[in-house]
Amino acid sequence: PPAWDRAARAPPSPLQPPGLLVPCRSFSNNKIQVELDESSGVAMMKFKSPPVNSLSLEFLTEFSISLEKLENNRACRGVIITSAIPKIFSSGLDITEMCGKSVEHYAEFWRAVQEMWLRLYGSNMVTVAAVNGSSPAGGCLVALSCDYRIMAENPKFSIGLNEAQLGIVAPFWFKDTFVNVVGHRTAERSLQLGSLHPAPEAHKLGLVDELVPEEKLMEKAAAVMAQWLALPDHARQLTKTMMRKAVLDRLVAHREEDIKNFITFVSKESIQKSLRMYMEMLKKKK
Amino acid sequence: PPAWDRAARAPPSPLQPPGLLVPCRSFSNNKIQVELDESSGVAMMKFKSPPVNSLSLEFLTEFSISLEKLENNRACRGVIITSAIPKIFSSGLDITEMCGKSVEHYAEFWRAVQEMWLRLYGSNMVTVAAVNGSSPAGGCLVALSCDYRIMAENPKFSIGLNEAQLGIVAPFWFKDTFVNVVGHRTAERSLQLGSLHPAPEAHKLGLVDELVPEEKLMEKAAAVMAQWLALPDHARQLTKTMMRKAVLDRLVAHREEDIKNFITFVSKESIQKSLRMYMEMLKKKK
Amino acid sequence: PPAWDRAARAPPSPLQPPGLLVPCRSFSNNKIQVELDESSGVAMMKFKSPPVNSLSLEFLTEFSISLEKLENNRACRGVIITSAIPKIFSSGLDITEMCGKSVEHYAEFWRAVQEMWLRLYGSNMVTVAAVNGSSPAGGCLVALSCDYRIMAENPKFSIGLNEAQLGIVAPFWFKDTFVNVVGHRTAERSLQLGSLHPAPEAHKLGLVDELVPEEKLMEKAAAVMAQWLALPDHARQLTKTMMRKAVLDRLVAHREEDIKNFITFVSKESIQKSLRMYMEMLKKKK
Repeated sequence: PPAWDRAARAPPSPLQPPGLLVPCRSFSNNKIQVELDESSGVAMMKFKSPPVNSLSLEFLTEFSISLEKLENNRACRGVIITSAIPKIFSSGLDITEMCGKSVEHYAEFWRAVQEMWLRLYGSNMVTVAAVNGSSPAGGCLVALSCDYRIMAENPKFSIGLNEAQLGIVAPFWFKDTFVNVVGHRTAERSLQLGSLHPAPEAHKLGLVDELVPEEKLMEKAAAVMAQWLALPDHARQLTKTMMRKAVLDRLVAHREEDIKNFITFVSKESIQKSLRMYMEMLKKKK
Repeated sequence: PPAWDRAARAPPSPLQPPGLLVPCRSFSNNKIQVELDESSGVAMMKFKSPPVNSLSLEFLTEFSISLEKLENNRACRGVIITSAIPKIFSSGLDITEMCGKSVEHYAEFWRAVQEMWLRLYGSNMVTVAAVNGSSPAGGCLVALSCDYRIMAENPKFSIGLNEAQLGIVAPFWFKDTFVNVVGHRTAERSLQLGSLHPAPEAHKLGLVDELVPEEKLMEKAAAVMAQWLALPDHARQLTKTMMRKAVLDRLVAHREEDIKNFITFVSKESIQKSLRMYMEMLKKKK
Repeated sequence: PPAWDRAARAPPSPLQPPGLLVPCRSFSNNKIQVELDESSGVAMMKFKSPPVNSLSLEFLTEFSISLEKLENNRACRGVIITSAIPKIFSSGLDITEMCGKSVEHYAEFWRAVQEMWLRLYGSNMVTVAAVNGSSPAGGCLVALSCDYRIMAENPKFSIGLNEAQLGIVAPFWFKDTFVNVVGHRTAERSLQLGSLHPAPEAHKLGLVDELVPEEKLMEKAAAVMAQWLALPDHARQLTKTMMRKAVLDRLVAHREEDIKNFITFVSKESIQKSLRMYMEMLKKKK
């Protein structure tokens, strides 16, 4: 069962003395590096999938597994998510997974996107996004799903759900997550225009909570994390569940339907054409 | 079927080359002047019903028909709505339609109000309100139902759902539209006080998106429209539908009940008296 | 039937000439002093339960009865709620009512908390909170349930739903009331952190509507009340009902379940321990 369903049943999880911990200091797979500081209970997750931390099927699977491992590790109470790649947090869903593949592949891919979001948005851990680069589309979703967003104040970095720019539509649960952060009006305008907001504008809209100079980002993330971890876990988790359950439950109730919609949409020749054109453009940019 | 239901089924609507267009450059009826610029795909709708662009049954019917014509014209992708009458955008629902008339008339009138809103709030076109004068009650609803609101920065112009000042209550779908723009708290306070907000205050509350000097209003509206039309229609329309469908569906599901409520309310002697007093006051003001 | 259900049926309630009024100038019980100014139709409620206006069972019962009396008195159209005790508006729910008592007592207590909120949030009267001191937890709920909140601008006074700090969780209807005032994102963050916001920050978040120097608080409250009472009662009441009914109905529909949840929660040994520790801390502070 996902974390937000377990919260109500789970006993309070006081920090165990370090000696009793399952050893889990660091695990690094292909795409994401994870380090757990057992003394603070804080894990650092670093996206390191060049060139732009695309959310491929492999990346998403590794992301979900990493989150699950940490969720089940009682030594871990919070996660800071950031990027090991300069200038980019994550470029969002990997378009190659949506182009010229089989229906089965589309289904598997979309289920992995859903799974990642259900784990992250519903996590019992404190989640802080340290957004140290641009973060369009799915990358923005990752940030929006955390408890707190700090962004490097560089105006060259932008963030937003810009799907409409590509001729595609953000799914309803991307939208729900966005509305819960910035409100209905800002979401309506930003989603329709497919806006990518430079960091200062993103801050003004409430899309990110705080801007700091890039060199202070990790320090600030650690300080924010410490502030959130000062609260007793159990009450904080139940409160988080109370705020997010309606939106999480909505996807769970419509999960298969949402996969079918994605397949139908992405299988259209007009959409395939748009995506191919977009990939060509990206290649030329490089 | 209304526009927001068709969006999901309609094919993307790329601009046709001008030569293939159904001729529809301009049509002007009694109350509203409509001009379509086929090169840009943008229609200009100008309210010209002296003295104050009241939303009478005739006005509303013409408004809905004009919207429908444009909606069905593939050459038209966006509409700018403004007033041809100085200092007033629209004074809202025509009170003479609610005073001393038959139950049948009340029903017909209210259905026309609903119809106008369903078409405008659910339009597949980009809708920009260029609010060049005061805009109380139903006039405010017209502006709120567009995708973007630009207002002349003259502090003598005011806008708001001021029904409570007249002793009447804004219907739930006026309220839903308002909440979607300004949020629950601002709507609660403004609706209870029946506030008419001067342009600068309206901007601060988010009731309008932007203020510009009156002489720059149309230029700015055209620039905003161009920005919104830069997006592919299909993705933008589906996104708009996703944001607005819940509120549109709510009226559709309760439409007959809403008409009955209006008739019951407006037929009360106490309300008739309030409205007559209000009309007397307006006459004396002239 | 509660006030918000009566509103739709009640006739407009014009002010009766003072001669016809039921005499009800002032009634003071143990915990709350109430004075009604029949010329203005405004009642002043002053919490006077030393040391910190805790919401004990006795206090809550008196509060609900006082509200009911005023609600049924046609001479009364509005209530200003404030504290007679320096530096504190109300410290919130009385923890002694939740510690080491019987299940029956917990049920009675919680029902009284619900009753107070249903009457206050659903009141047909205009309710203005003149927050002249700190206002944590249940004290904050009282302020949030009014139509308007004015706070003394002293940064030493703070306000917030800080339940999470105590290891407990604000019930869903505290949360709903909070979200309706400050929006989803601010509520999510503030509730998870159990934040107590100093007055200037509370104002910035929209948790209170206005700050004034402490010596001007009552004058300002009277001015705000006069502004709200300038509206016709009936339209204002129906509008208030329209804005608040969904959230009120939600508690009414889940009232017994909510009581059971409270009993289960508060009966846990871990929670009892937290509350006892918190009470010890408070005693030492004194």
